[in-house]
Amino acid sequence: MDRVWIEDIGQHVGKKVEIRGWLFNKRSSGKVKFLIIRDGTGFLQAVMVKGDVSEEVFERYGELSYEDAVVVFGTVKRENRAPGGYELLLEDIHIHAKALDSFPIPKVRPENIPDVGKLFRYRHLWIRSRKQWSILRIRDEVESAIHDFFAQRRFRRFDPPIFTPASVEGTTTLFPVPYFDEGEVYLTQSGQLYLEAGAMALGKVYSFGPTFRAEKSRTRRHLTEFWMVEPEVAWATLSDIMDLAEDLLVYIVERVLENRRMELEILNRDISRLEVIKKPFPRITYDEAASLLLEAKRKGTPIDFEYGKDFGSDEESLISHRYDRPVMITHYPRTIKPFYMKPDPKDPSKVLCVDVLAPEGYGEIIGGSQREDDYEALLRRIRQEGLPEEEYSWYLDLRKFGSVPHSGFGLGIERTVAWITGVSHVREVIPFARTPEKVRP
Amino acid sequence: MDRVWIEDIGQHVGKKVEIRGWLFNKRSSGKVKFLIIRDGTGFLQAVMVKGDVSEEVFERYGELSYEDAVVVFGTVKRENRAPGGYELLLEDIHIHAKALDSFPIPKVRPENIPDVGKLFRYRHLWIRSRKQWSILRIRDEVESAIHDFFAQRRFRRFDPPIFTPASVEGTTTLFPVPYFDEGEVYLTQSGQLYLEAGAMALGKVYSFGPTFRAEKSRTRRHLTEFWMVEPEVAWATLSDIMDLAEDLLVYIVERVLENRRMELEILNRDISRLEVIKKPFPRITYDEAASLLLEAKRKGTPIDFEYGKDFGSDEESLISHRYDRPVMITHYPRTIKPFYMKPDPKDPSKVLCVDVLAPEGYGEIIGGSQREDDYEALLRRIRQEGLPEEEYSWYLDLRKFGSVPHSGFGLGIERTVAWITGVSHVREVIPFARTPEKVRP
Repeated sequence: MDRVWIEDIGQHVGKKVEIRGWLFNKRSSGKVKFLIIRDGTGFLQAVMVKGDVSEEVFERYGELSYEDAVVVFGTVKRENRAPGGYELLLEDIHIHAKALDSFPIPKVRPENIPDVGKLFRYRHLWIRSRKQWSILRIRDEVESAIHDFFAQRRFRRFDPPIFTPASVEGTTTLFPVPYFDEGEVYLTQSGQLYLEAGAMALGKVYSFGPTFRAEKSRTRRHLTEFWMVEPEVAWATLSDIMDLAEDLLVYIVERVLENRRMELEILNRDISRLEVIKKPFPRITYDEAASLLLEAKRKGTPIDFEYGKDFGSDEESLISHRYDRPVMITHYPRTIKPFYMKPDPKDPSKVLCVDVLAPEGYGEIIGGSQREDDYEALLRRIRQEGLPEEEYSWYLDLRKFGSVPHSGFGLGIERTVAWITGVSHVREVIPFARTPEKVRP
Repeated sequence: MDRVWIEDIGQHVGKKVEIRGWLFNKRSSGKVKFLIIRDGTGFLQAVMVKGDVSEEVFERYGELSYEDAVVVFGTVKRENRAPGGYELLLEDIHIHAKALDSFPIPKVRPENIPDVGKLFRYRHLWIRSRKQWSILRIRDEVESAIHDFFAQRRFRRFDPPIFTPASVEGTTTLFPVPYFDEGEVYLTQSGQLYLEAGAMALGKVYSFGPTFRAEKSRTRRHLTEFWMVEPEVAWATLSDIMDLAEDLLVYIVERVLENRRMELEILNRDISRLEVIKKPFPRITYDEAASLLLEAKRKGTPIDFEYGKDFGSDEESLISHRYDRPVMITHYPRTIKPFYMKPDPKDPSKVLCVDVLAPEGYGEIIGGSQREDDYEALLRRIRQEGLPEEEYSWYLDLRKFGSVPHSGFGLGIERTVAWITGVSHVREVIPFARTPEKVRP
């Protein structure tokens, strides 16, 4: 008899199998007892009928509590009415380890329980629920799709350092770390500058790792610790990496639809909203987006946007809700973007950058740009910003020794997974979220 | 005419192509000029013969300096004598951007230059050298192989937090980070405890990310920031994860041999040492390893090993040099291993653990164990160690609610890549190494 994982159960129809897992739920209708078993790879309904199993096994139903570790034996049957399409005709069940206490998270729709604080206190157990399990499996699929996408295109993975002496986007939101005799170093906010060195050495590179932001902002979109994927490509222009970003997002969504449809259904995700995510994405300029916002403001929409300012989440929502797929906004004013972005030769008050806003109000998921590749221009910008020139001398070297056009972007994993799963708060799409008030468990 | 990357050049034999890259090297033998072009994906010899190209193009040879960004045009030819097996019959060359200074790293065997400090100061440029390029491409292949290995076995990626309130292996080597009103948190040394929660929810999980150790030790094997992959499996015993570790290492080596043979040759790696990495790996107990060491000591080998102590790097070398493949050492004394390891039921003075030592003296690359799954036994150990019980209450919960046997291990990426590439110091196998005295660039 084979020991099988629930996600492989379809390959064992008509056969007797062993499954090791936990009692997720149970219900009785007199002579028929239903057990829902989970083993981490799926949920399976196991059925026993009085008279078909020994009295001893049948009576074990009464002893079973939520999250008892169990080993069940039975025959796999195709059953369209069962969730997942299969059920197990149970022949025997061993209780491997009883739960020592009553499970702190109610099994009936735990997600509807208002006490979010308690759920996060029991995050280590909450992730066993159907909904959290589905979210984390979709996260895995998104991450796996990203690796496959870049591997197929022969990008080389390049792990930038986490400890960094200087910052990419200003120092106010950095986490300082005391570092031996070196004083303080900072936790990275982006591997970009290092990835640019990588692109000059390896052509096409990407990173995949945690980044940090010491921000007290308590929004649905912010964590202090979040994961990013950042590709960087030598000889690529803004337009090239816009195509790359578009291809990446389409591929991620396709993969989730292909492999995680059941999980999307568990989450009650409106799948039709994902099925329309196809090329081409709408591409508009900052000026076009601004006109649209100013027009809305004139008509009474309560936003405090003014031309030249960055978009806040209200503005992002307003823009993205006009489209059924991600919208790419380019050519922002230079004054609101970082020093390393290349000005548009046709209008140097703008930079060659792109932000991608997810549909349905999920906001910015990608930020990218063509990088300043002129040594003198970059040096000027570093000085204008009052950045410590010495710390950037290695970065300037990349323009000194065979400077080429190059571009890249960063994709936020949590925001992307929140959008795809339809979950409103990013703290639910990472195993153990970190926010200013939450570092436990 | 197609613009191609050098690693794809074999698909364009006989065709005219455009390549964008940098001048890596050049040499002249009178009427024939040889240019070595690199584009990040490979190195290619381009040849021009006086009379075959215009005088203007031919004379451009003299203008070319190391690391100038160039665009070259020519016809691809199979040429067995050329490194890589192809060469380009050059028809035209554009200098896109001159190097503004002379390249600080000599092109001739930069690896033989004694001033390691300078090489690391110019790490952002040094990675353009043949050897460093090869190492980083092999690192990418190792990382990519790891992702594919776990995806094929349907492990789910589970990203444990970097900020942690408690430590797995003692607090003396932790980096503290000031964290809002929470006082201090620590940078993770291992995601294991969180991965155990993940395994109970998702069955088979793994993490892949940076870990941190605030250790002043200046050895060839230590970095303050290093990458680890950590699988954790529900219902798995020590023997199960030993098989998993063995399969993983064999797979990684196979993939590198398959896809990175040229890079291994550039590194002068003795490939025959890798070709023997097949199953089964030798498996010995701590007691057997100890006997072997005590015997060597009796015969005059200068080691200060005593029974019951952990192995230092001298002892590890002595053991691993007896084998041509990784050796798995199990059943260490409980007293020298962490609290979460399960004692051997047959001899509770030992724990169900495994360390894997790489061949050729590269030392420990894997540490793993079966975890203590008994609530009372784990609580006792936490108290004996004087660990803060409250901080571990969530971890104890994993034994309270359906405890099952489970096991996992951690594989150090840098040590594994150092072994495979044959590089003696781990600081060369990560893009920007971090050591106690080195955080720049």
